[in-house]
Amino acid sequence: MIILGIDPGLATLGYGVLEKDKNGNVTARDYGVVLTPKEERLPVRLAILEEGINKLLDRCEPDEVAIEELFFSKNVTTGMAVAHARGVALLTCVKRCGRLFEYTPMQIKQALTGYGKAEKRQIQIVTANLLHLKGIPRPDDAADALAVALCHSFTSRLSGLYTI
Amino acid sequence: MIILGIDPGLATLGYGVLEKDKNGNVTARDYGVVLTPKEERLPVRLAILEEGINKLLDRCEPDEVAIEELFFSKNVTTGMAVAHARGVALLTCVKRCGRLFEYTPMQIKQALTGYGKAEKRQIQIVTANLLHLKGIPRPDDAADALAVALCHSFTSRLSGLYTI
Repeated sequence: MIILGIDPGLATLGYGVLEKDKNGNVTARDYGVVLTPKEERLPVRLAILEEGINKLLDRCEPDEVAIEELFFSKNVTTGMAVAHARGVALLTCVKRCGRLFEYTPMQIKQALTGYGKAEKRQIQIVTANLLHLKGIPRPDDAADALAVALCHSFTSRLSGLYTI
Repeated sequence: MIILGIDPGLATLGYGVLEKDKNGNVTARDYGVVLTPKEERLPVRLAILEEGINKLLDRCEPDEVAIEELFFSKNVTTGMAVAHARGVALLTCVKRCGRLFEYTPMQIKQALTGYGKAEKRQIQIVTANLLHLKGIPRPDDAADALAVALCHSFTSRLSGLYTI
């Protein structure tokens, strides 16, 4: 089974692709980021983002997609931009893969470390260890996307099934 | 020239379609709302929204689209949901119409009444009067969408031209 994890963002959207075998063993297949240029206007950036996500879906053909929920940060303007991008990510993914699951940052931390308020760095180290990676994946957005995919691989639930 | 105005929202997205003739006279051609069911999950609602906007674009074939920017309201959760929906609206529109323009609530108020802090009710009355409507368009979202389309019809600018 292929799981695609997504850490939504407008300038940088992180993705991580995991393969889970019948015994529950999980391997990293791919990770990286989709970038949109800051000098473009928002509608164009959203169109670039959609194109990037569609190419990613073509390439990895996920059975399930796990996407991080937004943490309401200090910066409302950034939060709003990310929410625009996340809307596009959810739309693009649900049109291609009905098995779409959402996780809060706290759920991800809890699943990976048993502690919902773990530090970002700790999550990255656990992610690298669990996936037998030589170092922490870069950039952070890709590491975060692998973490949400890992969180999903540990979590059995049926609440993300969509029919559109 | 056909101008489509959009007041973005997740549960209710308002739209208003204006025709502007060579003399600058503006007539309302259509207005209404695209609804998404509250009981559905966010990704499905976004897909329903996209479908509704595409049908609207099929029907009115706008030359230009004007869409309201978000006002950062008291309620962050609602604001985030609207930002997801607005991301989908911008994406769907820019893929079909490169002449896409954004206006803040203050710009709309300023254009319609000459006063950037005018009351909502006052904007609605001005909108109805300018378009020779018998009453204030209902629901509010449709009235707001007509207002952003009217604002655009009064505003000459080239800053909304996109090529994707």
